Amino acid sequence: MEGQKLLINGDRLKESLEKFADFGRTKNNGVTRLSLSEEDRKVREYFRSCCEELGMTIKVDDMGNMYATLAGTEDKAPIVMGSHLDTVKKGGRFDGVLGVAAGLEVVRTIVENKVRLPIPLTIVDFTNEEGARFEPSMMASGVLSGKFDKQTMLEKKDINGITFEAALKSSGYAGEESSRLKEATAFLEIHIEQGPILERESLTIGVVECVVGMVCYELEITGESDHAGTTPMDMRRDALFAANNVIYELRQKLGNLDKELVYTMGRMNISPNIHTVIPNKVVFTIEARHKDPAIMKQVEEIILQLDSYSKLEECTLNIEKLWDRNTVWFNEEILAIMEKSVSSLGYSYKRMASGAGHDAQFIASICPTAMIFVPSIKGKSHCEEELTTWEDCEKGVNVLLETVIEMQKE
Amino acid sequence: MEGQKLLINGDRLKESLEKFADFGRTKNNGVTRLSLSEEDRKVREYFRSCCEELGMTIKVDDMGNMYATLAGTEDKAPIVMGSHLDTVKKGGRFDGVLGVAAGLEVVRTIVENKVRLPIPLTIVDFTNEEGARFEPSMMASGVLSGKFDKQTMLEKKDINGITFEAALKSSGYAGEESSRLKEATAFLEIHIEQGPILERESLTIGVVECVVGMVCYELEITGESDHAGTTPMDMRRDALFAANNVIYELRQKLGNLDKELVYTMGRMNISPNIHTVIPNKVVFTIEARHKDPAIMKQVEEIILQLDSYSKLEECTLNIEKLWDRNTVWFNEEILAIMEKSVSSLGYSYKRMASGAGHDAQFIASICPTAMIFVPSIKGKSHCEEELTTWEDCEKGVNVLLETVIEMQKE
Repeated sequence: MEGQKLLINGDRLKESLEKFADFGRTKNNGVTRLSLSEEDRKVREYFRSCCEELGMTIKVDDMGNMYATLAGTEDKAPIVMGSHLDTVKKGGRFDGVLGVAAGLEVVRTIVENKVRLPIPLTIVDFTNEEGARFEPSMMASGVLSGKFDKQTMLEKKDINGITFEAALKSSGYAGEESSRLKEATAFLEIHIEQGPILERESLTIGVVECVVGMVCYELEITGESDHAGTTPMDMRRDALFAANNVIYELRQKLGNLDKELVYTMGRMNISPNIHTVIPNKVVFTIEARHKDPAIMKQVEEIILQLDSYSKLEECTLNIEKLWDRNTVWFNEEILAIMEKSVSSLGYSYKRMASGAGHDAQFIASICPTAMIFVPSIKGKSHCEEELTTWEDCEKGVNVLLETVIEMQKE
Repeated sequence: MEGQKLLINGDRLKESLEKFADFGRTKNNGVTRLSLSEEDRKVREYFRSCCEELGMTIKVDDMGNMYATLAGTEDKAPIVMGSHLDTVKKGGRFDGVLGVAAGLEVVRTIVENKVRLPIPLTIVDFTNEEGARFEPSMMASGVLSGKFDKQTMLEKKDINGITFEAALKSSGYAGEESSRLKEATAFLEIHIEQGPILERESLTIGVVECVVGMVCYELEITGESDHAGTTPMDMRRDALFAANNVIYELRQKLGNLDKELVYTMGRMNISPNIHTVIPNKVVFTIEARHKDPAIMKQVEEIILQLDSYSKLEECTLNIEKLWDRNTVWFNEEILAIMEKSVSSLGYSYKRMASGAGHDAQFIASICPTAMIFVPSIKGKSHCEEELTTWEDCEKGVNVLLETVIEMQKE
C-alpha cells in the first residue's frame, strides 16, 4: 500500500456515470428514474452485472436495498460505500448515482490493480432515497435505522395507488430481512453538494461533518373575508396584511441570529384567493436549519413569541410545529482520515455541514459514518441542469478510494 | 300628492322578499340563484305574475332584461326602478332582489292607494348582474350601455360549457332588442350597502353619489428556486421575500394617501409552493378604489415606481395593469331629491360612494341615475349571513317611493 498513490480511472468513472444516466435519460440530459420503476429495475440489473463481473457477492434485503460485497482477506465488518440510484422526476445525472458509481470505481481500481484489502468492501444502493414516488424520502435507510416503521412504509402509495410493497415485489427486489446492513467498519457516502458553497469558495471537496438539524412550523392566520371595495381599511381583518407583518418580523429576527442559519417560507396559500375579496386565511410554512442546537432553540423561541405579536391586524394566529430533526454528527475518526486523504491528494477542501438530508444521516446510527461532497454548479440539483464537472467527480472518488485504503491501516 | 305622506307596507315588503328568497333558498337561509338557472327562470315567472296582477305591461329585451311598466297619465319616459334577481352561489336574500322587490312595493303602494302618476313607472330586472355564472358581472346593463359587445357576451360560457346565448334561449327570456331601455326620466336603484359604514355610523340611508373608480394591477416577481437547506441566505433570490418587501412598501405608501382609499392584495400564488424549496415566483394582485381621480393617479404612480424599487432581493418585477374604471358620478338633481325625501321622512343618512359595482353605473350613461343604500349588518354580502333589517329595508323603500313621488313634480 506504500509507494505510489493508487488513483481511480476518471474516464471510466465518466463512462460509468453516463451509462447509468442512460436508464431514464430525459430529452434535456437529465434523468427520470423513480424508485422501483422499470428504469430503476433496469439500472439495478446493470449495477448487479457490473458488480458480478468484479467477483462481488450480491445480497438484497427486505426493503430492496442492494449490497455488493468484495471479500477482504480478513473476516471483518465491511467498509460500505454507496448512496441511491433513484431520482426525482426530471432530476439530474449525479444526485445519488455518484455514490454508487464511486463505489464501483473504487472496487474496479482495487481489483484492476490486484490489491488485496484486509477489510471487505460493500457497495450499497438504498431504495427510494428521494421519496419522489413514495414518501417519505430516505425510506429504506430509515427502516434500517429504526427511524421508520417497516409495515407503515410498505403501505405507502404512489400517485397511482400502488403500494411500496407491491412495487417492491413486482420489481423482483424484495429480499431477506437477514440481508440488512447491521454492522460495518464504516459507511462512506460521496454525494453532490446540492448547494453553491464549494463553487463560490472555489473548493473541490467538502468533508461533511454533519447533517444539520431542522424545524418546520406551519403558521395559520385567520381574518375575515370582506368586500375589497366596500370595507374601509380600518375595519378590515386582512389575513394577508397580517402575514406580511409576521413574515417581515420573522425575517428581521431570524436574520440577526447567525449567518449559517437558513430559513424559508416555501409554501403559502391564501383564501379565498380572489382579487376583489379581502383574504380571510393565509397558511404558510417556516422551515429553518442550523447545525447548532442553541441556534435552533432561538429560532423556535422567535417563532413561538409570535403568539404575542402585536401587529396581527385583528387576525388570529395559530402556530403548529410540523416536525423537527436534530443535527446528526458524523464520525470524527473518519472525518480525520478523509481530511488527511484530501490533503495527501492536494485538493482544496473545507469541513462543512449538509443542509440536505441523506441516507448517511440514518446509517450513522448503525455504524461510523461520514460524507464527501463535490461541488454542484450553481448549487443546482433535483433538476435536469444538475451538474458536477467530471474532474470534480474524479477527485471526489479519489478521496473515497484514499479513505478506504487509509482505513485498512487502522 | 299633498297632505299625508304615502308610505309603503313594511310587512308586505318583508313577505315579498321572503317569497323571492324561496326561489333557491339554501339550508342556511341564503340563496343560490345563478343567472338563467331554473331558479332564476322561476323567480322571473313569479316576478312577472306579480307585475301582471298590478296591471303592468311586461317586455323582455334581447339580453333577457325584464321591464314591467305601469302606465302614467302622461306620455313621458318612465322612472325606472330595479336591480337584479340573480345571486352568487350561496349568496344572500337582499343583494339585488331588494331593488326589484322595492320597485314592486312602490307600485303596489301606488296602485293600492289609487294614485295616478303622470310619469310611467318601470321595474327592471337586469340579467346576470353578479357574473357568478357568466363573467363579467353587470353583463346585461353593460351591453345596454355599449360597454360590452353583445356577441362577445352571448358566447361567454359557464363552468359546464353552456353559452350565455344557449342559457338565455332555453330560459325562454330571449326577447327583442327593440325592448331595451333606451330613455328614462330616471333610473333609481336601491341596494344593500355591502359594506359596514352605515352600520358603524348608525345611519339608515346612504344617498349614493358615485361608484368609485378602481384599478387592478398584477405584480409578478421572479427569483430562483433553490434548495431550502443548502442555499445560504446571501445567495438566494427568494421571490417570496421580495414580495414581502414589495407589499410592505405598498402598504406604507398607499396607507398615507387618503383615508377613504381602499386597497387589497386579494389573489396571490406562490411557485413551486413546496416547503423545502425557495419560491421562484410570486404573482399577486393589487386592487385599489377611490372616487377622486387625483388619488387614483397617485396610487398608480406608487405602483409603477416599484419598477425602480431597490429591495427586490435580486428578483425581477413585472408590473401589468389588468384593468381600470373611472368613477361614475350620479345625477345631482336626483341626489338632491333623494336627500330631500330622506329628510322629509326623518331618517338619518349620509352621502356616500359605492365601493362595489352596480348596474346603475352603466345605466348612468343612458339616463339620469342615482342609488340608495341601506345598511348591511357587519358589512356582509355575497354570503348566507348577508342581512339588512326589515325596518331598514322598509325605510329604504319609503325613500324610493318618496323620491318617485317627488320626481313627478319636476
